[in-house]
Amino acid sequence: MDVVARLTRALPGKVETTPDVLERYRRDRSGRVADGVPLAVVRATSVDDVQTACRIASATGTPLVSRGAGTGLAGGGIAGAGEIVLSTTGMTRVLEISPANQYAVVEPGILNGDLNRRLQEHGLWWPPDPASKDISTVGGNIAMNAGGLLCAKYGVTREAVLALKVVLADGRLISLGHKSVKGVTGYDLCALMIGSEGTLGVIVECTLKLRPVVTGTVVTIGAFFDSVELAATAAAGITAAGLQPAIMEILDRRTLECVSRFTGSDLISRGDSYFLVQCDGPASVQESSSVLDIITSAGGTAEQTTDPAESERLVDVRRQGFPALEAMGTMLVEDVAVPRENMVAVFRKIAELEGKYALMIPTACHAGDGNLHPSFVFQGDTVPEEVWHAAEELFTFVLTLGGTLSGEHGIGVLKRRWLRAELGDDQFDIQRQIKAVFDPQNILNRGKVFEP
Amino acid sequence: MDVVARLTRALPGKVETTPDVLERYRRDRSGRVADGVPLAVVRATSVDDVQTACRIASATGTPLVSRGAGTGLAGGGIAGAGEIVLSTTGMTRVLEISPANQYAVVEPGILNGDLNRRLQEHGLWWPPDPASKDISTVGGNIAMNAGGLLCAKYGVTREAVLALKVVLADGRLISLGHKSVKGVTGYDLCALMIGSEGTLGVIVECTLKLRPVVTGTVVTIGAFFDSVELAATAAAGITAAGLQPAIMEILDRRTLECVSRFTGSDLISRGDSYFLVQCDGPASVQESSSVLDIITSAGGTAEQTTDPAESERLVDVRRQGFPALEAMGTMLVEDVAVPRENMVAVFRKIAELEGKYALMIPTACHAGDGNLHPSFVFQGDTVPEEVWHAAEELFTFVLTLGGTLSGEHGIGVLKRRWLRAELGDDQFDIQRQIKAVFDPQNILNRGKVFEP
Repeated sequence: MDVVARLTRALPGKVETTPDVLERYRRDRSGRVADGVPLAVVRATSVDDVQTACRIASATGTPLVSRGAGTGLAGGGIAGAGEIVLSTTGMTRVLEISPANQYAVVEPGILNGDLNRRLQEHGLWWPPDPASKDISTVGGNIAMNAGGLLCAKYGVTREAVLALKVVLADGRLISLGHKSVKGVTGYDLCALMIGSEGTLGVIVECTLKLRPVVTGTVVTIGAFFDSVELAATAAAGITAAGLQPAIMEILDRRTLECVSRFTGSDLISRGDSYFLVQCDGPASVQESSSVLDIITSAGGTAEQTTDPAESERLVDVRRQGFPALEAMGTMLVEDVAVPRENMVAVFRKIAELEGKYALMIPTACHAGDGNLHPSFVFQGDTVPEEVWHAAEELFTFVLTLGGTLSGEHGIGVLKRRWLRAELGDDQFDIQRQIKAVFDPQNILNRGKVFEP
Repeated sequence: MDVVARLTRALPGKVETTPDVLERYRRDRSGRVADGVPLAVVRATSVDDVQTACRIASATGTPLVSRGAGTGLAGGGIAGAGEIVLSTTGMTRVLEISPANQYAVVEPGILNGDLNRRLQEHGLWWPPDPASKDISTVGGNIAMNAGGLLCAKYGVTREAVLALKVVLADGRLISLGHKSVKGVTGYDLCALMIGSEGTLGVIVECTLKLRPVVTGTVVTIGAFFDSVELAATAAAGITAAGLQPAIMEILDRRTLECVSRFTGSDLISRGDSYFLVQCDGPASVQESSSVLDIITSAGGTAEQTTDPAESERLVDVRRQGFPALEAMGTMLVEDVAVPRENMVAVFRKIAELEGKYALMIPTACHAGDGNLHPSFVFQGDTVPEEVWHAAEELFTFVLTLGGTLSGEHGIGVLKRRWLRAELGDDQFDIQRQIKAVFDPQNILNRGKVFEP
């Protein structure tokens, strides 16, 4: 009996093989499309379902791609010929919310935004805030160690997970981490699982570390600078002063041009770079006043507001960046990160690459943590060779600055050819051996992260 | 040529074999003494030295125990017959302090307290604050994933490390993590190394994530309650209200009795439990006022101060706990952690065990994160069997509450026999296989964490 027949018999009503359904699972939000079409989609609704699917995949040696909402930007969740898709989007239950312990236990398929709406009733929140939060799952956020706008102040996903239940490739269920805030028994396999992009196991239950909702007035500042270097200087000055805004974002001239065109506004006439800062918490008003001083000293023209609607307007300039670029053509969104003081050097390098390769590379930047998103815009479906050359040159440059290929999007298939360069041969080999410990047959997300 | 001769020739002037020196390395602060005496102590002063020692250990199949200041409480750093001690206490250089990037690069042997004094000049600090911070090394803090008093608010050591350089058992040097705040390239081996107790590699360089010094008035509250349950109720109420004190500590009646006797004070006449709270940050005054209300409602009698000397006096009650207990006899200090609302249940269980086994088990507790330190006090050098029975009963109970054997002290040799019970067979086997990936000959800290 073939693998699809076995799945269908073991999981009645939960296995789909309709061609147009399968077609959807060949892609995610990276623009990459898998070769061929997957065999079947298993829609798991329980831990048991996941274990059953993994046992069958394992027994038949069939590659299995676990998948949340498919919002990944590195091709980590795409599935092609000969592969089973294991979707956890049907596992959306909130199993426990404990205000006393400040944790929630949830299934992996719940959307980040839905969870946070539930938590709000209890005066709690889960800090990971990728831009995709309204459409991405908690399990996906954990599998990718998602970042977002608030990380400099509130940490990345790894800092917001206490424990995980994980189904191994062979169907065994293991529990990693602790429900206590502290715990040091053996190796931290919970941390290892976070950001492992579906290659070590399938996350089936998540115990999340929550925070009390932040109190105080939210103050938003939108500022224009004559150059992206000046905006980056202001950001560096804010960090150096020991201030901790919740949000610090920079848009470069290219992005501002695209947003102006896309929204029909005159933003670009107001400066060459946009700098968005948001302060929260009990000292926000005092903090924003110090921020404003630094912006003004660095040559910025700023407006500041505590009005929610006005604040939305200032934040929206940043938020329109992605759709504005999408309207310009196809995009390869990069995700380099560097120690903060090197942001200016990366902006300069990007300008140099634009000239050298005749490309358009609008760039937005999480300035609080040195994470830049240069978006290589091009026409057509295939990434042009010069884009890859420019990207490679950028990666190499970033590594010399103590930076990384990927701050928050992951490796997937998009960046796997550069992974060894960043990790070095010895660490690369160790990582592959760890993969083999968890998944000796190499059936989980085969060919992702590491080249096949 | 034997291993000691090879070490002496390769590392002239850095290898000690004097019996009274060797004798010191048989023990740490856990009270455990290794069987036999180690072969030699290598005093490394460079990465090269560490690589040389590891290469020789590896070539000769000789077990090697890397060691910082020897302040561990679980026997993780003790060395016995046939073992080489690799001391990194001579590697104390600060290689870089970057206020712009909020990181410091240091060698592993620098003391936590010394580093923080250096950082203060730059308006920065490294948050890990084990009680041992003035006598324990940064490398040791990382190897154990040290906790301390401030973790509920400022996180454990794992959240304060960006990157590590590590020498593998065979002498190869690898770089883990990134100097950027974010980074998701491959598995998070930097997180895996933190808390691995010297079993996966020797940490030789640490890039530490720093925070700006906390501003605002420090408010300290010392309160007495009629029972430890009431103190725990107040602590739970503070957490549930979304308040985030920097410090929340509870002492039980037994500990208070010992401190009273030790310091010749009348503390025990003032209540059956002591509750210490410290608020910092820009909202500290407002926060402490809410804390005080909760304490009073829970039946506590509190005094509050912003005066540094008065504050010291209130903190000192907690700080005298450990020396006061040491004065009573030999101690086995346990380190269980539970979800916060289960603290009361653990206190009750401890009282029950005191009766059942006729033991004295004074307990202090980091109430902000549910980490309790029941100290089994006894006379003589050998842990009595009934202490082990009581400890085992406590561990079993804590696991049923979703807790852990060790919140911050680690496994070492002291708790290795219970590790499998907590991790489960499947995870235990995976952990051992990961150990084998890094150290196939099993020479690094052999017999620690996992039973030989």
